Amino acid sequence: MEKWMGGDMHPSYRILMGPGPSNVHYRVYQAMSNPIIGYLDPQILTCMDEISEMLRGIFQTKNRVTLAISATGSAGMEASFVNFIEPGDRVVIGVNGFFADRMTQVASRCGAKVIRVEEEWGKKIEAEKMIQALREHPEAKICGVVHGETSTGVRQPLEEIGAYCQKGNTLLVLDAVTTLGGYDVKVDEWGVDVCYSSSQKCLSAPPGLSPITVSSKAMETLRSRKTKVESFYLDLILLEKYWGEERVYHHTAPVSMFYALREALRIVYEEGLEARFKRHEMLGDRLKMELEGFGFKLFAQEGYRLPMLTSVVLPDWIDDVKTRARLLNEYNIEVGGGLGGLKGKIWRVGLMGEACKIRNIHCLTGALKEILS
Amino acid sequence: MEKWMGGDMHPSYRILMGPGPSNVHYRVYQAMSNPIIGYLDPQILTCMDEISEMLRGIFQTKNRVTLAISATGSAGMEASFVNFIEPGDRVVIGVNGFFADRMTQVASRCGAKVIRVEEEWGKKIEAEKMIQALREHPEAKICGVVHGETSTGVRQPLEEIGAYCQKGNTLLVLDAVTTLGGYDVKVDEWGVDVCYSSSQKCLSAPPGLSPITVSSKAMETLRSRKTKVESFYLDLILLEKYWGEERVYHHTAPVSMFYALREALRIVYEEGLEARFKRHEMLGDRLKMELEGFGFKLFAQEGYRLPMLTSVVLPDWIDDVKTRARLLNEYNIEVGGGLGGLKGKIWRVGLMGEACKIRNIHCLTGALKEILS
Repeated sequence: MEKWMGGDMHPSYRILMGPGPSNVHYRVYQAMSNPIIGYLDPQILTCMDEISEMLRGIFQTKNRVTLAISATGSAGMEASFVNFIEPGDRVVIGVNGFFADRMTQVASRCGAKVIRVEEEWGKKIEAEKMIQALREHPEAKICGVVHGETSTGVRQPLEEIGAYCQKGNTLLVLDAVTTLGGYDVKVDEWGVDVCYSSSQKCLSAPPGLSPITVSSKAMETLRSRKTKVESFYLDLILLEKYWGEERVYHHTAPVSMFYALREALRIVYEEGLEARFKRHEMLGDRLKMELEGFGFKLFAQEGYRLPMLTSVVLPDWIDDVKTRARLLNEYNIEVGGGLGGLKGKIWRVGLMGEACKIRNIHCLTGALKEILS
Repeated sequence: MEKWMGGDMHPSYRILMGPGPSNVHYRVYQAMSNPIIGYLDPQILTCMDEISEMLRGIFQTKNRVTLAISATGSAGMEASFVNFIEPGDRVVIGVNGFFADRMTQVASRCGAKVIRVEEEWGKKIEAEKMIQALREHPEAKICGVVHGETSTGVRQPLEEIGAYCQKGNTLLVLDAVTTLGGYDVKVDEWGVDVCYSSSQKCLSAPPGLSPITVSSKAMETLRSRKTKVESFYLDLILLEKYWGEERVYHHTAPVSMFYALREALRIVYEEGLEARFKRHEMLGDRLKMELEGFGFKLFAQEGYRLPMLTSVVLPDWIDDVKTRARLLNEYNIEVGGGLGGLKGKIWRVGLMGEACKIRNIHCLTGALKEILS
């Protein structure tokens, strides 16, 4: 242990227009510089109560079990399966992108038998196809759907699938990683049983937490398990005992991240959900128009395009890697490349939370004009 | 979503002398206010390389797979079992405290058959007892031991157990949550295969990350699994692909926490490990002497007392809950109560990292004099 490592770190101030993380309000950075307190300190417990209460409003739910998992959105996905799946359980998953495919992997690792309802990447899944699969497998424990597919920019409507799941025992698990805070996520109205998200997209806190809400139907399924949840860290019964009234120690809460999330959620409340959704919608439309002007083609199915993440097919005269590298290195602008089979073919341009500003669109179009001319 | 939640949050400036988290250097708070960048930004990848390199020095290892898991120490524990256990595998765990007991729960949930080598809480486990159990179960996949048992204040010597495990296929898993950065953790010399820790104790970063190091022997065991690791989030092969040269996206890195950990590790390097261990040892001795002067009895076995966490039995004339509440509310000092069967019987007084200062001992003894007089 001789060597001293590096100097001070001075990361560049990026305009984050990729698939997340998004930029963070200066008040959120300030909140993180609040002093650390203990994981059972009355002050952190109040902070956690406020986070739960604010998350309920944003998830549009009355679910008592509404909290932030102390890990990123991928852990939220895992929590949404590992708590409910017992070996051999059947799950039905709509697969039209990278993260829906990840759902199938996570579910399989938990021991589930996965029925994949496939759809072309870039298209929504037809409700009737999902419902048909659920009819064929009425014993399915979980129906998994991605609300905003970050790999393709597609928004999935939930009303019909939710209405069907509510009639039976199947739990509807919804990935709202990309949409929460930027688009309506109507957990109670749609009949979603488990909905998880992330701190770093439209909520504009730093990455590291996964907000999640769980219906009483799902909690009953969890309580009637025959086997223990494989994951101690993600066990929602233990998390509920820490976040709820019992206050039983489970893990050392990441208090700085809680401070950050609380402040980011307050900013959401100050703007109001409706105004926030409107802002994402208007600027999302504007960005799509601008990108089309450069010769990009919109990738996602018309009518189901996410406002906060625009996927565009590159014209063949634009070099993917070189152009994104120039945007990053010369203009400090991050945009996302394609994932999986879409690598090199599409860009994913985000306008999420604090990053969803007209001036960011101006910066991007200005830079693109210079680079592509 | 009508209600606005609370006002600004102004947590009290606590002196953190509990079982963790510890206080954080102002440079670490400053580092967290650095702007967010993307999870594949070259600047965050450099930051991660530096974290790995600094962690190798502190773990005293050459292990290539040395990284920080994006969740707290409990997730580090889970990663250390879920990656290596396949259903029915045997593990031998030395159980002399709350966290060793948690190891057995985590291992069971992963499908392991657990052999418990029991010892009275407050005592170290005799190496011969562990080795005897390993002799009886040569097929054991893992031998699990807690280096610094946060529930009792006991330090576990590792030399003999490590030497035995090195001769066979059994992997030695070590919990260094409390000790890393405050006491020697000689991963390579002792023959530890998997060692996990936490960011918020003697390393004095905020809670939220779990440093971990994995030997090549353990990585071979992992690669020769017949089944997939149950946890996607904690899968060390996927984490290695993100932290290593391949840079394959796995999850959105908690970049603010990485900034914080990097700065906290730099501070460890500036002080130097030897000086840091000496500071913890000297002040730990001083604290023990002071507490004995108040009538507390030292709880942990003599010769195996942790410097950074002193466990003391309360004299019957001191009220546990009331006295700790007064320390917290009137003096802004957090000390820890007992866990499990030791609740109400002992205190756990920490001196970890930035909180390990003579002035904190003065504050505590001064406050205790006032409260107890």
